[in-house]
Amino acid sequence: MDLFKTKGVVYKPVKDVNLGPDSTEFYLQANVKAPRMAGIVVKIFTWLLESIFGGFLLYILKGNNLIHKHITNADLEESPLYVPLHQFEDQKEQEVKCLDSALTSPEKVHLAIDCLPTTTLEKSVNGTKPSFHRWTIMDYFGAYTSQDITPNMVAERFIASVGESSKPPLQMGFFINYNVEDILKQANESTLRYHKGEPISVLDGVLVAIKDEIDCLPYPTTGGTKWLHKQRPCLNDACCVKRLRLCGAILVGKTNMHELGAGTSGINPHYGASRNPYDVNRIAGGSSSGSASVVSAGLCPIALGVDGGGSVRMPAALCGVVGLKPTFGRIPHDGVLPLNWTVGMVGILAGTVEDSLIAYAAISAEIPSHLPSSLPAKINLPLLPLTKSLSDIKLAKYGKWFDDCSDDVRICCSHALSKLHGRYGWKIEDVTLPEIEEMRLAHYVTIASECHASLDSFRNKYGRDLAEFGWDARVAVKIYGAFSSMEYIKAQKMRNRQLQFHHQIFSTADVIVSPTTAVTAYQIQNDALKTGELDYVNGAALIRYSIAGNFLGLPAVTVPVGYDKSGLPIGLQFIGKPWAEATLIHLAFAMQSICLSEYRKPIIFYDLLRKN
Amino acid sequence: MDLFKTKGVVYKPVKDVNLGPDSTEFYLQANVKAPRMAGIVVKIFTWLLESIFGGFLLYILKGNNLIHKHITNADLEESPLYVPLHQFEDQKEQEVKCLDSALTSPEKVHLAIDCLPTTTLEKSVNGTKPSFHRWTIMDYFGAYTSQDITPNMVAERFIASVGESSKPPLQMGFFINYNVEDILKQANESTLRYHKGEPISVLDGVLVAIKDEIDCLPYPTTGGTKWLHKQRPCLNDACCVKRLRLCGAILVGKTNMHELGAGTSGINPHYGASRNPYDVNRIAGGSSSGSASVVSAGLCPIALGVDGGGSVRMPAALCGVVGLKPTFGRIPHDGVLPLNWTVGMVGILAGTVEDSLIAYAAISAEIPSHLPSSLPAKINLPLLPLTKSLSDIKLAKYGKWFDDCSDDVRICCSHALSKLHGRYGWKIEDVTLPEIEEMRLAHYVTIASECHASLDSFRNKYGRDLAEFGWDARVAVKIYGAFSSMEYIKAQKMRNRQLQFHHQIFSTADVIVSPTTAVTAYQIQNDALKTGELDYVNGAALIRYSIAGNFLGLPAVTVPVGYDKSGLPIGLQFIGKPWAEATLIHLAFAMQSICLSEYRKPIIFYDLLRKN
Repeated sequence: MDLFKTKGVVYKPVKDVNLGPDSTEFYLQANVKAPRMAGIVVKIFTWLLESIFGGFLLYILKGNNLIHKHITNADLEESPLYVPLHQFEDQKEQEVKCLDSALTSPEKVHLAIDCLPTTTLEKSVNGTKPSFHRWTIMDYFGAYTSQDITPNMVAERFIASVGESSKPPLQMGFFINYNVEDILKQANESTLRYHKGEPISVLDGVLVAIKDEIDCLPYPTTGGTKWLHKQRPCLNDACCVKRLRLCGAILVGKTNMHELGAGTSGINPHYGASRNPYDVNRIAGGSSSGSASVVSAGLCPIALGVDGGGSVRMPAALCGVVGLKPTFGRIPHDGVLPLNWTVGMVGILAGTVEDSLIAYAAISAEIPSHLPSSLPAKINLPLLPLTKSLSDIKLAKYGKWFDDCSDDVRICCSHALSKLHGRYGWKIEDVTLPEIEEMRLAHYVTIASECHASLDSFRNKYGRDLAEFGWDARVAVKIYGAFSSMEYIKAQKMRNRQLQFHHQIFSTADVIVSPTTAVTAYQIQNDALKTGELDYVNGAALIRYSIAGNFLGLPAVTVPVGYDKSGLPIGLQFIGKPWAEATLIHLAFAMQSICLSEYRKPIIFYDLLRKN
Repeated sequence: MDLFKTKGVVYKPVKDVNLGPDSTEFYLQANVKAPRMAGIVVKIFTWLLESIFGGFLLYILKGNNLIHKHITNADLEESPLYVPLHQFEDQKEQEVKCLDSALTSPEKVHLAIDCLPTTTLEKSVNGTKPSFHRWTIMDYFGAYTSQDITPNMVAERFIASVGESSKPPLQMGFFINYNVEDILKQANESTLRYHKGEPISVLDGVLVAIKDEIDCLPYPTTGGTKWLHKQRPCLNDACCVKRLRLCGAILVGKTNMHELGAGTSGINPHYGASRNPYDVNRIAGGSSSGSASVVSAGLCPIALGVDGGGSVRMPAALCGVVGLKPTFGRIPHDGVLPLNWTVGMVGILAGTVEDSLIAYAAISAEIPSHLPSSLPAKINLPLLPLTKSLSDIKLAKYGKWFDDCSDDVRICCSHALSKLHGRYGWKIEDVTLPEIEEMRLAHYVTIASECHASLDSFRNKYGRDLAEFGWDARVAVKIYGAFSSMEYIKAQKMRNRQLQFHHQIFSTADVIVSPTTAVTAYQIQNDALKTGELDYVNGAALIRYSIAGNFLGLPAVTVPVGYDKSGLPIGLQFIGKPWAEATLIHLAFAMQSICLSEYRKPIIFYDLLRKN
């Protein structure tokens, strides 16, 4: 209980904090004090929260979960930093191809192809044949060009597969919306282009799925809700979708997501739980749940998600695919639901690192000019594979944090890292990254406050009420409204503070390495299906490694590196310097090459390029 | 009463708002619902506010004052804009001298001299001798150089004058701190330099006063309080002070201010009310009260203030001097009390426009590199006077707003504007600037929230309690803590919206013109002296024209244009495009030249350069 003013932490000056391996900084483990709730329990809790006891309950919750101690009453001498927008600096990355950001998307994609490995040998570092690999964009392009198969055929197979997987017994919950007619129309046009020998780019005829948080015609943008699209009609493609369309990609529909991105499980009470292709009784992770699972299940080589608190990287890791979240501002945010303004970014889910590179080239661009920053006039793409060892790459690792995960995750990620070190000799430096859990609290206050401000406007406009919300989202939204302006501003002071720590780490290291999630995909319990579920304990374990990518706007990538004892995928994460996406993709490719021979096929998998 | 959720305003899209003279946009007049309180009444109110009824009382106050309607429950589609930092664009201003921002302060000051008018004729447009004028920096420099008088003599006269004016019957409340020994030491050094014929710059030996919100050795920085300096010792000169010191200026002490800048009257219960040199029974205005009154009374040709909500411009106007608030970010903020982070800026108070130009040259510089903006690599200084008519200058005027002031102010400002038009033929365009009062509310939510977050840290650190606050500041601080994170974020959405309106106005106009305050200096009532006073009605009238300068970070200048029936000064304000300070100074100089012959000497005036 926390009835009287908790003493706040007095954070010491940044310059007095030791970031070395010998630091005595305390590692605060997440100690979430909120029991899992679903079914009738979450309903009762919701009623309480919305009753006159709500204020008191929220106060207790905030106190118990250390918000008062670490944020509300804390003393930070830093100025608030509101937007993690980084000065663009040319990263002087090695072995890159430099694109002018003013090029069109098809031109960029065309240049990106030069970055790809050309031989099978190059794809796998140790020369062994991969045990399983998903079809890549280049596989599709090759098949279409050689007329082995047409976009039409692929589209039909896609439609059949989604139809089958949507019904019992699977009920995969991949999509919130897909329109057969619209898909076939696009496929027809693409097929014609290939017939004429005039495909627009290698993305021509390639299926791409879009998270239902991003505008994509002809679909409404529900944000996983039953009401938001009625308040905010989708009138246009989002900028990133427009760019993919320009390249000839076939936009196959809107993927399922955690309602309003307000959770990490991907269990949506309105559109069904997103299920994991490696085990359909487990979550796909969230909130870009469907985008991860459709790529994992082979339905699309790439999909778009939005990552406001690991929402691209977490489901990517849980579903065994690649997840890339570029630097804040790198991908225009126009046409994405404004659920927050300072932490969210469009991200890419892809079956392979190569495909994430192509998608990245297609949708990256200059920062919109209204943002008060210098333009990143250039986009670096990595030349894959490394033609020589990048001898001076340094990876920073914070042991206490790295190891704060399940045994399986720890062993698998450590093993992968050893292999990377063994192959390339890259140095792994032990560092201390202080106040990570504190940063998670500050990020929570931030994303919660922004989401609340955003939803309030939408609800205001037409007077929608809470009854249209799922129960878990309803609780989330109530908690989201619990913060004062002072708490929000102090969270921004924490942002400044953390950015200083990270700058300091990056003054000697090129990337920070960690697991992507602390646990693998957990079971979907029956009581959650109708009401959604509140599971902040598992949520905190999933989100543990994600925050710097959002709160500080740093680029990050997750790449599959193995499986737990139950055969569920595990991801390793690289967090990079601002604008240094090329380095991240380099590292992810190197990691993928090492792990490729051990990749496993998911239980639910659709081979849309099969020969028959 | 406002017990249930007030319906919020649904703001229409910016593109649908007509900014032309024929606009039907409603002009919302400030309708402050908070009675004036001082003495025992403010004490009772404070106790109520701090009791268990406090929350309810705040809710009523916010509702009655339209915060709920225009902010809390409002619906704005804009993204929040947190910091009004403008992309630096070279303004292509006419008749300017362009300085490299990397020059030292003495070098800049040296170059600034070339911008000054050289003949008396140039100083006054119509060739008449000014009826009264304050000694300028060049007057001091001339007297020192010709050895008519020494910095030592001026310093001694200064010390005697301040001593006399501090005691009854005057009790002007000019300074919170001044150190005779330190002043004489600086004066001695300067005198020696002149003896050797080696003055550092024209600022050598010139007296400069600093608002007690800005660090200046050897003084504590009280912020007008009795406690803040004990929590936050002053260890260094602020950056702007350092620059003045580098030029040889004599820093004469810390001027009185409204406690914590939390009001506009300048009545400080700890250090005495700042009194107006034109009528000692009236306020000097605030919060840079002492800085305005010492310049007005002839004690210093220039002084520094901080302008977070008109705090430089309002007292300047009320005391009949020039007040210049440059573009947000133009003057480094290091060493200024962090009472807010997104609205406040160091500003200049000066007896003449010429002196504001010299001070501006001395302290302006590049934006500190940690801010995510491109550097303003250049500083334009206006060449005074205009050698030819700048034929294409356009002044935007919003009639309903311009006229929303006392009769005296309206008549005087309109008259001044006509004369300006008559002399130069500059076009005055009628425009509509929508939602100005709404912007004031948003600015209030912002500065209040930031101040609360800032003070909370200071109080936290050492557990100070409210008993050390003046009563009015104590109420202010309580109200400052009343805002939710959503209200703060919505206020930032309003900031974005208003910036779009202003950009649109500036696409055709060069400056926006308005009175500086809606009323002239009002009476200091006896009951306010011990407790401070809450007078939000007069406060709103004073601040009416100030907000765009702070909330949008635009540069603004006030210049005296006349007097009301009681002989109290009236100021006219020009608000400029980002980084276009030179245009503002040009206009202010033109205005000053026209009004010069009617300037009146204040009742309290010290002639430190007199011959005997």
